[in-house]
Amino acid sequence: VNLRIPGPTTVPVEVAQAGATEMINHRGPEFAALIARTTEGVKKVYQTQNDVLTLTASGSGAMESAVVNFTAPGDHSLVVSIGNFGDRFANLVKIYGGVLTKQEYEGGQAADLNKIEDALKADPQIRTVFITHNETSTGVTNPVLPELAALVHAHDALVVVDAISSLSSIEVDTDGWGLDVVLSGSQKGWMVAPGLAFASVNERAWARAEETASKQPRFYFDLKRHKDSLANGQTPWTPAVSLFFQLDKALEMMFAEGLEGIYARHRRIGNMVRDGVRGMGLELLADEGVESDTVTAFWLPDGINGSQVSKIAREKYGTVFAGGQGNLTGKIMRFGHLGAMTDEDIQAGLDALKSAFADAGFKG
Amino acid sequence: VNLRIPGPTTVPVEVAQAGATEMINHRGPEFAALIARTTEGVKKVYQTQNDVLTLTASGSGAMESAVVNFTAPGDHSLVVSIGNFGDRFANLVKIYGGVLTKQEYEGGQAADLNKIEDALKADPQIRTVFITHNETSTGVTNPVLPELAALVHAHDALVVVDAISSLSSIEVDTDGWGLDVVLSGSQKGWMVAPGLAFASVNERAWARAEETASKQPRFYFDLKRHKDSLANGQTPWTPAVSLFFQLDKALEMMFAEGLEGIYARHRRIGNMVRDGVRGMGLELLADEGVESDTVTAFWLPDGINGSQVSKIAREKYGTVFAGGQGNLTGKIMRFGHLGAMTDEDIQAGLDALKSAFADAGFKG
Repeated sequence: VNLRIPGPTTVPVEVAQAGATEMINHRGPEFAALIARTTEGVKKVYQTQNDVLTLTASGSGAMESAVVNFTAPGDHSLVVSIGNFGDRFANLVKIYGGVLTKQEYEGGQAADLNKIEDALKADPQIRTVFITHNETSTGVTNPVLPELAALVHAHDALVVVDAISSLSSIEVDTDGWGLDVVLSGSQKGWMVAPGLAFASVNERAWARAEETASKQPRFYFDLKRHKDSLANGQTPWTPAVSLFFQLDKALEMMFAEGLEGIYARHRRIGNMVRDGVRGMGLELLADEGVESDTVTAFWLPDGINGSQVSKIAREKYGTVFAGGQGNLTGKIMRFGHLGAMTDEDIQAGLDALKSAFADAGFKG
Repeated sequence: VNLRIPGPTTVPVEVAQAGATEMINHRGPEFAALIARTTEGVKKVYQTQNDVLTLTASGSGAMESAVVNFTAPGDHSLVVSIGNFGDRFANLVKIYGGVLTKQEYEGGQAADLNKIEDALKADPQIRTVFITHNETSTGVTNPVLPELAALVHAHDALVVVDAISSLSSIEVDTDGWGLDVVLSGSQKGWMVAPGLAFASVNERAWARAEETASKQPRFYFDLKRHKDSLANGQTPWTPAVSLFFQLDKALEMMFAEGLEGIYARHRRIGNMVRDGVRGMGLELLADEGVESDTVTAFWLPDGINGSQVSKIAREKYGTVFAGGQGNLTGKIMRFGHLGAMTDEDIQAGLDALKSAFADAGFKG
């Protein structure tokens, strides 16, 4: 089966096999060496000198960790939502007692720096800004990150970035852009099975975590505990050791290809998918210029049932696409093109998509 | 390297290899079939008809889930602690705003049903009782579980059991004993790499979860969300798919051996370890009659440095033992004997232990 969904992505055979390495003691010297090595590698991909903590959880766990470590009940937060995963931040902020300003965009639109500034001016009490770098549900990459931190810091707030489906496929210059907290997850461009999530934390964010410590309960996702344990080559709770083995191998493969090469490949295959989908007569969800290089969302034409197309693609052509999420369910389909993927894989995916659409009655 | 620690345990080659199975869509029919099968298998081992939810987290995450789903701030809880993992429940109850009665026992002692009843009578407001079935830090199995639920229910409270290091190695009759919530973790007797945790929940506990929903914030560990997703063959957040593959294979191996056979084997190798350790002139921590069949803790004799013994065992004899935790650090050592372990493995472990002690200057 060919996975053309925006995660979990195909795990290369070498990476999958690395996960079968003989189990080790998570409190011994072998694990200490392993987590030191993977942390160093992940920091390199993040382009950061900040602490990077590895959680045994999926990306949603990392999102929860950001909310429970960097906000306290009653704190004002701005969530910039361009889709389903932005909505998840908004949901988390409300659940954990925050006072929420939610700035919403139409599906396919990117965030606007001026509107973010307006929101910050409208509520000077906003202390944290949550934003999605690459919105998996709409296939949009927010272009505002390089300028965002300076703006947010001028209002004395923190910026927390969900880079789960971009980091390792699309460049994120954590330190160059001054991002306080950046999240990612193993099952995306990292080419690792799901179950590990990452959070980078800078000094400004640690100061906030110290301030919220007595106000916001946290335990499993307490990032300070992870930082303290990491100093001893450990994690506070038993880590998903086999996924660390996979990550170690995947990082080795990534550095062999080179980060610039990986980003260039994702730009190229992103273009291939967009050209291919448009060539079929389908319309992209994303506005021009902000299309994601890891996932492409397109509208279902009138009279075409997306579930049927997906079923045909899976059963007849061995290729798995994703449907819409939230209010886009039944209206769009999504083609994931991140991680271990070649031009040939993309061409095969486009061929399968075209055939499945034709079988479902689409005249193009 | 031979792991003789109480988890992560040795992952059999067939199980490790199953984890390298080609990645699948976690929202597709293959995963739905997989989680249906593993859930059925885990329920069989639990001996329960209750819901069993599988979390992508380590056992500590399952412990947090019990506290945030079944207690609200201000609720009175009794934690029966016979060691480090009982203390973890107490810590969690305090962090999440509970009013805590902590009943502590000396290291090596088991809980006493009469004392638990005294504590329930002393505070009629106690609504939840937390207890460790098998205390990994001291090598003690609490014998009170079969009678406990009736006692706790008579006081209109819930009982939550940490069976992380017992379930699948030592019998836990969840429904027969009337246990409301029971927790376990993949990296113990289940023979799977770390990263999955289980929680069984009965009707009584679900009613409590509904009651606390508006009072206790929760998201990643919200068990109701897991229950709702499971009805659709999914998990609310991306699951650790490769560990589900491993679990599927491990359950197949467990049922091939038979649960009675597994329990008998653990009783036999537990006896072997105890006889072997005592035969070396070492003294067990556990009181007679409550020794654990999954982990044996023993006192370090005067003048013997446990870290040195462990280092020699690891480097010279390729065998990894565990040290003490919490206030037992430096005072005891621990020999794990759970999961994929034969009589020959145990004998080899005892030989390595004896040699390492001799090398460290122990005269016996």
